[in-house]
Amino acid sequence: MNAMPSPLQQQAQQLSDSVTRPIPGSRKVFVEGSRPDLRVAMREIVQTKTPTLFGGEDNPPITVYDTSGPYTDPDARIDLSAGLPALRARWIEERGDTVPLPALTSEFGRARDGDAKLDAVRFPARTLPRRAKEGANVTQMHYARRGIVTPEMEYVAIRENQRLELLAAGGHPLLAQHPGQSFGASIPARITPEFVRDEIARGRAILPCNINHPESEPMIIGRNFLTKINANIGNSAVSSGIAEEVEKLVWAIRWGADNVMDLSTGKHIHETREWIIRNSPVPIGTVPIYQALEKVDGRAEELTWEIFRDTLIEQAEQGVDYFTIHAGVLLRYVPLTAKRVTGIVSRGGSIMAKWCLAHHRENFLYTHFEDICEIMKAYDVAFSLGDGLRPGCIADANDAAQFGELETLGELTKIAWKHDVQTMVEGPGHVPMHLIRENMDKQLAECGEAPFYTLGPLTTDIAPGYDHITSAIGAAMIGWFGTAMLCYVTPKEHLGLPNRQDVRDGIMAYRIAAHAADLAKGHPGAQVRDNALSKARFEFRWEDQFHLGLDPEKAKEFHDETLPKDAHKLAHFCSMCGPHFCSMKITQDVRDFAAEHGIGEEAAALEAGMAEKAAEFRAQGAEVYRRG
Amino acid sequence: MNAMPSPLQQQAQQLSDSVTRPIPGSRKVFVEGSRPDLRVAMREIVQTKTPTLFGGEDNPPITVYDTSGPYTDPDARIDLSAGLPALRARWIEERGDTVPLPALTSEFGRARDGDAKLDAVRFPARTLPRRAKEGANVTQMHYARRGIVTPEMEYVAIRENQRLELLAAGGHPLLAQHPGQSFGASIPARITPEFVRDEIARGRAILPCNINHPESEPMIIGRNFLTKINANIGNSAVSSGIAEEVEKLVWAIRWGADNVMDLSTGKHIHETREWIIRNSPVPIGTVPIYQALEKVDGRAEELTWEIFRDTLIEQAEQGVDYFTIHAGVLLRYVPLTAKRVTGIVSRGGSIMAKWCLAHHRENFLYTHFEDICEIMKAYDVAFSLGDGLRPGCIADANDAAQFGELETLGELTKIAWKHDVQTMVEGPGHVPMHLIRENMDKQLAECGEAPFYTLGPLTTDIAPGYDHITSAIGAAMIGWFGTAMLCYVTPKEHLGLPNRQDVRDGIMAYRIAAHAADLAKGHPGAQVRDNALSKARFEFRWEDQFHLGLDPEKAKEFHDETLPKDAHKLAHFCSMCGPHFCSMKITQDVRDFAAEHGIGEEAAALEAGMAEKAAEFRAQGAEVYRRG
Repeated sequence: MNAMPSPLQQQAQQLSDSVTRPIPGSRKVFVEGSRPDLRVAMREIVQTKTPTLFGGEDNPPITVYDTSGPYTDPDARIDLSAGLPALRARWIEERGDTVPLPALTSEFGRARDGDAKLDAVRFPARTLPRRAKEGANVTQMHYARRGIVTPEMEYVAIRENQRLELLAAGGHPLLAQHPGQSFGASIPARITPEFVRDEIARGRAILPCNINHPESEPMIIGRNFLTKINANIGNSAVSSGIAEEVEKLVWAIRWGADNVMDLSTGKHIHETREWIIRNSPVPIGTVPIYQALEKVDGRAEELTWEIFRDTLIEQAEQGVDYFTIHAGVLLRYVPLTAKRVTGIVSRGGSIMAKWCLAHHRENFLYTHFEDICEIMKAYDVAFSLGDGLRPGCIADANDAAQFGELETLGELTKIAWKHDVQTMVEGPGHVPMHLIRENMDKQLAECGEAPFYTLGPLTTDIAPGYDHITSAIGAAMIGWFGTAMLCYVTPKEHLGLPNRQDVRDGIMAYRIAAHAADLAKGHPGAQVRDNALSKARFEFRWEDQFHLGLDPEKAKEFHDETLPKDAHKLAHFCSMCGPHFCSMKITQDVRDFAAEHGIGEEAAALEAGMAEKAAEFRAQGAEVYRRG
Repeated sequence: MNAMPSPLQQQAQQLSDSVTRPIPGSRKVFVEGSRPDLRVAMREIVQTKTPTLFGGEDNPPITVYDTSGPYTDPDARIDLSAGLPALRARWIEERGDTVPLPALTSEFGRARDGDAKLDAVRFPARTLPRRAKEGANVTQMHYARRGIVTPEMEYVAIRENQRLELLAAGGHPLLAQHPGQSFGASIPARITPEFVRDEIARGRAILPCNINHPESEPMIIGRNFLTKINANIGNSAVSSGIAEEVEKLVWAIRWGADNVMDLSTGKHIHETREWIIRNSPVPIGTVPIYQALEKVDGRAEELTWEIFRDTLIEQAEQGVDYFTIHAGVLLRYVPLTAKRVTGIVSRGGSIMAKWCLAHHRENFLYTHFEDICEIMKAYDVAFSLGDGLRPGCIADANDAAQFGELETLGELTKIAWKHDVQTMVEGPGHVPMHLIRENMDKQLAECGEAPFYTLGPLTTDIAPGYDHITSAIGAAMIGWFGTAMLCYVTPKEHLGLPNRQDVRDGIMAYRIAAHAADLAKGHPGAQVRDNALSKARFEFRWEDQFHLGLDPEKAKEFHDETLPKDAHKLAHFCSMCGPHFCSMKITQDVRDFAAEHGIGEEAAALEAGMAEKAAEFRAQGAEVYRRG
């Protein structure tokens, strides 16, 4: 490794201030678990008092889930070329079932490591990876099934609760919530470490945490937890470099991505991935077949199990937390796509289809599936069983190819579980609204409630440029029905590679979808933030409203376009109605009137004393609040 | 009226080229009905041929619904200060049941007309309005119930079919479509004028077309027709002038608004409305209570039936096509809102609540409802029965106040129908996904299937800056369940007044929602455009893909960000995968392979002759398409 920082390394040290400044109105808090090195990061949104004329009460801070990692911690020292602190290193070592390796195992990894031409783009602070001891299984599922609650599981339990207990202790009115409709989910009122263990043990949730990605903050994906979202980044042959991708990662988690997939396909795919993993507090997923294909110069028919295997080990030793594996694209399903409008749109799916046709043999990912399991359990890489035959348009939704593959993914899930390998299952795609539920129901049935991880689905094909919206509709619905993680779609889908603004728009659309799903499922505490924001809105606490929103900076910017002056953020009106008339103000009249006259929910009470009360109301001055 | 054009009039003549240029890839076509002056405007999207390597076939032009009026017609001469041609004037006159008035009827209208200070902002080409002859009822519902098929009804029937017969004649594969799930809708395979008449007669659809808005192109709102969207425009005391609002109207219909509501509240509210109506090919709705409130300087308790009545007549004689009337805000419902998180958020609802409380009398819109019906039927203004008590946040959804009012709106619908007055019913608001269906079911039951017209609903409160998305989710769902028209929400909702970009984003989100709903309902022909666009996408016909999309200009702009060169639009790859690998290309291999070997849907056929076929495939060269 070279001592002089390369231009890339210098650039990487200069992450822009805008991506590391604290989120407005929030502060980073840490909740300690059963041991001092188990400190769960959360974001606390501080609220101001209610204005006197609306009651003058204090409003509690609201704790929200925080995916942004150390980047939004003013006390953290960020140096991309050093990577993030190895939060989980001690936990992994303590388990005593892994060993540090003397050298990289994969041929490709060793070759890259020995190639001096790559020094300029190489991540400089790399240490050698670990692997399970001979015969050991180091997956969280394996521990869970043996009854062990790992620090990762405890971390996740604390994290999922979002300090709801602080409000629950006082029976706070912000906890009021509609009963949900959960379609058979089993969400407890409070997440315990034991519940996390049990969900992982039965395969209903995964905790993706490769032992070689100790920088990651544990998170969980399962239908009985908060709905998660994934953002894809990655350069291609056509566009964008390493520094840009790392900054895109940091933006993505700042805006709320729970997971990030690196789908890079360029010539520095290995080095880009290293930079991303070392600097990522969220699990990183990949599609190893993309890189394997580059190793055979794009000729799918030249792929071999050996090349693929080496790629899996290469990436597992870098710390990739989950692999998309298209092992369900069986030879017999391929002809089922011939009459489709858009055939096979998954890159991984089409690679395997081509291989199958060229060799007229069964997909080697399927025939070697148990060999893959052996690799997965040596590093705790989770499966994301790819839906290579997902529909690429409305016309192809829910067809025989798609559902045939889904049945095979169910079969593979059970094989992975036999090896205690954590597994989730990928889903569509393009599906009209009325066919979405069938996807979820079939996945639950075929895959034994293994977490479903869907791309959208897009509910129409006709809006290129707006597919974050066509798909957020489907994502919200399928999330409600039971999908555990939603893979975002950006406005650039089908058109080009997403830039930073597209990533932001995609993530926001998907955080909306995920939260709408949590509300509809009746996830405990999900409505707190809605309630707090709506109360702030009603009371004209503009800054609180911005801070409680998913994107405080955007909300403030939009408000300021119409009413830019700071004074207006204290104003008890907004630009929609102007200062002379405001429906919120009138509601407060109604509320005060009802309170002063002891009028509660009983309509009759009002009607009874009509004339007298009207006189009183007028006497008080029908306008309760006036300003100059 | 002054001869010299005022600065406003000069400005109005200069509508920007960008808002009147033809939509890329489209041409205006007219379908003639049973009489030569019945010419229904549509937009035809021309497609290129399929590239030879994908089959080389011709692709038919796709006809789509066109809301843009004469503005996108290169043959039309646009002069905002003259207004649009009076398309329906002859039809109205022919019926012989209306008379031109010698003067404006409303006091306010006469006062404005005589005020020379307003000359500078006044629409110059105003003619005097018409009214029903003494005792006549000129509503489309009245005609429909007497068995009369009006030219408006025939126009609508032709318009709704979108020339589907051109494809149907040849049994075109683009017509393939999933069977929908329509929740009891009764959508025929083909819309006939008689079907339109019948739907209007039974109150299940409305055709908003004030006799004083002869410039409007007839359109229909009902659950058995295409789902429609409404865009709100309008200045407020804080922002924007007349010329800006007129241009916003033209943008809104270019992007696809089926209806526009003018919610202006500024001091030239009367004059702004005149400019908008005279230049609008789509129905215009208003909330007359906003203007009535201005007439009493914002003091709701000073409102009287007489002031309101004069406002209704003033606006009816300008040509407003539907009025939002908050007649369901009954005194006994008002206290039910006192314990809400956000009370009454509807402006109209809060005005009436305040009036009720101040006087301790029943809402005068309710007590005078039959008087209002008398006005509506003299001009054919449709009711949009306002949901003044709609929930303003998730917490308040589906509560006693909201559903109490909805029951009253059902009662009022039946009264309006007794007078043959066309009626639709407004709906929420903020509703979590799992409570949306109950809104639709209750509305259908209470209001006898009168068209439902909802604002969103927003499925979460926590995304200020993105409420076009929070609400598009709810809008798509409720549209699927049976809502006839979706009122858009822009990204500025809750934060400020929408500018042109916000209007565009709001409209696109809602066209997506409306179309997703049509697909899910199984509306005949709804999938044609999806099928055509997806086929174009598969075949790398980039320009066709852009043109078939909801926003061709945005799609092209996004594509060009990554691959700007024109040559790339003929390239058989895209920026996502780059030139060396492409899943679409591989699918074509699969397809060719299946075709050449006679492999259809039968998986077994492939598996049988495995070895031989594999050899053939390799012999042909596994890469079917190569380029430099």
